[in-house]
Amino acid sequence: MDSLNIVILAAGKGKRMYSSMPKVLHPVGGEPMLARVIRTARGLSPSRLVVVYGHGGDQVRERIADSDIIWAEQAEQLGTGHALKMALPYLSADGKTLVLYGDVPLTKMSTLQRLVEAAGEGMAVLTDVLDDASGYGRMVRGADGKLQAIVEHKDCTPEQLAIREINTGMMALPNARLAGWLAALNNGNAQSEYYLTDVLELAVKDGVTVESTSVDASWEAAGVNNKLQLAELERILQANQARTLLEAGVTLADPARIDIRGEIQHGMDVSIDVGCVFEGLVELGDNVEVGAHCVLKNVKIGAGSKIAPFSHLEDAVVGGACKIGPYARLRPGAELAGHVHIGNFVEVKKSKIGDGSKVNHLTYVGDAEIGRKVNIGAGSVTCNYDGVNKFKTVIGDNVFVGSGTLMVAPVTLERDSTIGAGSVVSKNAPAGELTVARARQVTVPGWKRPEKKS
Amino acid sequence: MDSLNIVILAAGKGKRMYSSMPKVLHPVGGEPMLARVIRTARGLSPSRLVVVYGHGGDQVRERIADSDIIWAEQAEQLGTGHALKMALPYLSADGKTLVLYGDVPLTKMSTLQRLVEAAGEGMAVLTDVLDDASGYGRMVRGADGKLQAIVEHKDCTPEQLAIREINTGMMALPNARLAGWLAALNNGNAQSEYYLTDVLELAVKDGVTVESTSVDASWEAAGVNNKLQLAELERILQANQARTLLEAGVTLADPARIDIRGEIQHGMDVSIDVGCVFEGLVELGDNVEVGAHCVLKNVKIGAGSKIAPFSHLEDAVVGGACKIGPYARLRPGAELAGHVHIGNFVEVKKSKIGDGSKVNHLTYVGDAEIGRKVNIGAGSVTCNYDGVNKFKTVIGDNVFVGSGTLMVAPVTLERDSTIGAGSVVSKNAPAGELTVARARQVTVPGWKRPEKKS
Amino acid sequence: MDSLNIVILAAGKGKRMYSSMPKVLHPVGGEPMLARVIRTARGLSPSRLVVVYGHGGDQVRERIADSDIIWAEQAEQLGTGHALKMALPYLSADGKTLVLYGDVPLTKMSTLQRLVEAAGEGMAVLTDVLDDASGYGRMVRGADGKLQAIVEHKDCTPEQLAIREINTGMMALPNARLAGWLAALNNGNAQSEYYLTDVLELAVKDGVTVESTSVDASWEAAGVNNKLQLAELERILQANQARTLLEAGVTLADPARIDIRGEIQHGMDVSIDVGCVFEGLVELGDNVEVGAHCVLKNVKIGAGSKIAPFSHLEDAVVGGACKIGPYARLRPGAELAGHVHIGNFVEVKKSKIGDGSKVNHLTYVGDAEIGRKVNIGAGSVTCNYDGVNKFKTVIGDNVFVGSGTLMVAPVTLERDSTIGAGSVVSKNAPAGELTVARARQVTVPGWKRPEKKS
Repeated sequence: MDSLNIVILAAGKGKRMYSSMPKVLHPVGGEPMLARVIRTARGLSPSRLVVVYGHGGDQVRERIADSDIIWAEQAEQLGTGHALKMALPYLSADGKTLVLYGDVPLTKMSTLQRLVEAAGEGMAVLTDVLDDASGYGRMVRGADGKLQAIVEHKDCTPEQLAIREINTGMMALPNARLAGWLAALNNGNAQSEYYLTDVLELAVKDGVTVESTSVDASWEAAGVNNKLQLAELERILQANQARTLLEAGVTLADPARIDIRGEIQHGMDVSIDVGCVFEGLVELGDNVEVGAHCVLKNVKIGAGSKIAPFSHLEDAVVGGACKIGPYARLRPGAELAGHVHIGNFVEVKKSKIGDGSKVNHLTYVGDAEIGRKVNIGAGSVTCNYDGVNKFKTVIGDNVFVGSGTLMVAPVTLERDSTIGAGSVVSKNAPAGELTVARARQVTVPGWKRPEKKS
Repeated sequence: MDSLNIVILAAGKGKRMYSSMPKVLHPVGGEPMLARVIRTARGLSPSRLVVVYGHGGDQVRERIADSDIIWAEQAEQLGTGHALKMALPYLSADGKTLVLYGDVPLTKMSTLQRLVEAAGEGMAVLTDVLDDASGYGRMVRGADGKLQAIVEHKDCTPEQLAIREINTGMMALPNARLAGWLAALNNGNAQSEYYLTDVLELAVKDGVTVESTSVDASWEAAGVNNKLQLAELERILQANQARTLLEAGVTLADPARIDIRGEIQHGMDVSIDVGCVFEGLVELGDNVEVGAHCVLKNVKIGAGSKIAPFSHLEDAVVGGACKIGPYARLRPGAELAGHVHIGNFVEVKKSKIGDGSKVNHLTYVGDAEIGRKVNIGAGSVTCNYDGVNKFKTVIGDNVFVGSGTLMVAPVTLERDSTIGAGSVVSKNAPAGELTVARARQVTVPGWKRPEKKS
Repeated sequence: MDSLNIVILAAGKGKRMYSSMPKVLHPVGGEPMLARVIRTARGLSPSRLVVVYGHGGDQVRERIADSDIIWAEQAEQLGTGHALKMALPYLSADGKTLVLYGDVPLTKMSTLQRLVEAAGEGMAVLTDVLDDASGYGRMVRGADGKLQAIVEHKDCTPEQLAIREINTGMMALPNARLAGWLAALNNGNAQSEYYLTDVLELAVKDGVTVESTSVDASWEAAGVNNKLQLAELERILQANQARTLLEAGVTLADPARIDIRGEIQHGMDVSIDVGCVFEGLVELGDNVEVGAHCVLKNVKIGAGSKIAPFSHLEDAVVGGACKIGPYARLRPGAELAGHVHIGNFVEVKKSKIGDGSKVNHLTYVGDAEIGRKVNIGAGSVTCNYDGVNKFKTVIGDNVFVGSGTLMVAPVTLERDSTIGAGSVVSKNAPAGELTVARARQVTVPGWKRPEKKS
């Protein structure tokens, strides 16, 4: 698009959020609302992208650290017209400016594209049509159907109150006219604010054509002023995302009980049970099954793997045909090859586990490199930490680690070695041999059981 | 309020609940319906609070053991008029009586206040206005708009059927008239019951003014006769509670997936993920985050602490800036100072853990007193029980407990001591020293792996 | 019913399911749609039950392996009329044929019974009445109210478009006429398909009476063409099942958050908290409580037992008055007597546990036979696997197993024996005695803590 500027108004405090975080940083779908609007804006390839900031500006600029954004400060909150005026010095002399809002996070890119195109050489307003327009600024049109003004609800005549077409606030404006129009705004209203909506009448007065286009759904124009509205938009976004997955063939046990705060990429015949939460980028191969109540964050799961209920995976890679969980915890750096089994109450951190290996019960594997076809018995621990440093445990192919084994790192269990149950292994275990560290079993003669103390 | 008596009718069996527990004891929001009505009633500071009981009376009186409640028995269930008559001996000679129902749990105190005030020196009825009033008793008014009678649906004329104002059953009555009116009721109806609603006509006949006020929402008047209705009211209560949290600035991932059976007290910037259940009194400090699918019961969480998914906390105290879970279990008597980390598959019972200490993996801590900056390795256990008695484990500041350590209580690990991995510590470990109880590692020459039996 | 044939059309590919599994095998309520339709059909005791298969026929026949089903292949998908023609050779000479669809899974048996009865000696169509009939075939009736034709939406006159009674596709037909009617169908339409709906006009022409009956709810006639519709029907089924439980007196914390993929049989005063998933046959005795977020599959729970949150039980039997969980995992073959406690992070597999025994923390019990009043300490493991074979652990009545004990099977702990904490028991422990296998505790003089490496 030729010479498109986009200005995102993001200076509001959001007093009714009751938060120390600026309103536009509150997340929807795991992403700050402002970041989401910026992402949508980028889809239109603007030549300039200006964010007008104000309250909590440092937090905002730190969180949204994109180098190409032009930051315009609005020190005092004197209305949307005033906010856009703060961006004026950074806009190009001609072309158009699209005005968006940092607290209106769900507008579709295609809708904005339509709005920019509708503006042509003039101006265009994004509108919505509501069954109950109470409270909204009405789009007043002349007998010729052309837009004449936006009239606030409280200023409406009885005829105007019947209008169901309302202003969303988003608009595209001709840069050549902007300076003049913004200078002409006045704040002679109850709030003593400069309203951007007033430019519509100035445009009409100047003989500039004013077009409109409507959102496809009201949530595209919905803004957030409090946590109730934040929760409402969160649910709308989640429902939309669930619908997209269903349409692509993913089986969801309950579309109302899946939360995606990021993105799911998936193959065919993927199924997801109730109560799962996805964060970041999650890649699910063909035939992957995710059981009830799992949490997956930045993970890649190979084809045919089954994740049983209550599993918690983060920054991990799981190969194909693995069985994970229930109650499996994969922490950052867990990398499983194919056909690996990780069972209940098992934690894996920063470790590689080779093809066909099994860690089925009550075990902690940290900082380990485990080969193929290894079996680690229940209740085993890689003792990777001496209080200040972390060390590595290396386990060769085909090793059998008996239950309750403690591997004091740095230590190597060579290939085909066997470790007797209950051993504390602090020296290397030679290949192919049985290594044991175990006390002798004795029965104590004459011992009496303790008695209940009073 | 001067001389207000409140009578709660709670004698019904609730046959359609299919339960051995009296209907009014079934909980809504974790609290028996009757207890909830009593709590609301107390808000009006009645001079006398009478509960009319019947079916399952012993269970009811045992469960609701408040000493100030006057219990009136209704041995036979002969209707609401008869039930109130059972309370008559316990009411004051003058003043008013507010009649409530033990199976109508969600009436707001402010609504009842309004009802009592509406009664003035006369009587007042709490009404509702429904789109579809089918099945309800209609409020019949004269040409002057004054209430004349309550007519049951089946007795309505076609004109009366069009009335949308209905009787909720709750009413405020002048005590001076009560004995007379109740004596005048008759049971000449299909059910052979004495209906309290009939007093309205008696009041009109006696020239007593009859006023009305309406509920703010229909659920205030909704009663429970079966588990379907119980579940409906539960969801309404939960939605109301979620809304209250949102309005106060708490972030809820999904207002439809939080259950509060008690009370949440919270600071600023608290966020709660999907699927959490809260019971009893839960206090959440500023910036507390509760992850998905956590269960918290009677716990206090300090500012900045993060509770990761699948954690289960009960009767516990967590200091500030702690990291708990995922899969952490804090049982009664767990008291954590600040900056404590409790990791996955860790159970803590009746133990104090000092500032900055970490118990990160697969460990049971019971009956322990743990100092500051202690690290307890994976797979450790405080052996606090000898089969009949429980003993204490004391761990000083800055102790490092290697993985897989068993601490046989009573035992003390003195400050700055280090315990080698895999030790069974049954005697005190001296300060600053390394203590170990471990067998020597040997490799068995010539050992052969077992073979698969056929 | 005399000589009822049922034909289930199940040949469609379900292209929009985007699945390698034939559409009719996708599950609703845990059961393939086709299996559900077959189950409903069997309720009508048909003399012949024919399934017309096509796409993915091998998968379908393998999955639905009932020996009494007659399989008719439809090699090419040429319409519903053509599909029924494929079944013709397998139908009886007289009697009736009921036509059902493998992707319409929720029709009630009582509705189909009504349809078959409505047919009498003639034909009957199952209809629905919709507020918005757009897209559906309309039931066109003559002035006498008798059915004349089914007209597809796109072929409707303006008057016909106003008809709200629509065709569900299900119908009962007289066998004696079928061959003639099916031969008379033509495929002169946009899709070049033979439509079964066209038989209605043939019936009218032949003077055969055509009756109709309607579904009780639209979901009875809802078919599945994509995952969105599959999810919708899943939720409808789940809501229906929850309602049935509530009506029978089960307490559900949230009827919208329970998933039953099979059947729940229950006693009185059963309560189920949010987020639970039930699969297969689950039997819950009187007063059983199932906590939040539990997964139960093919389990039987005795009266008074409490299942705490996050428990996962599969193919297991739990006696009465047991306490299970939170985070308890009962795997196939776990059989608990009464008053057993299984605590957090405990896994039990293929083991019997006697009355009053306790396994409360972080333990793996596999292939064990445990007596009465046994206590197994935290962090214990039955080492049942030597890498190739599994062995049994036998524990007598009243044994006390200290924490962190490893039982190397095959091994027996005789009755009343006590095992010291941290023992590796590889030989039998004699009755009534204390058996220990533990290294001596020593303090290493002059040892220095490791330092942080740079």
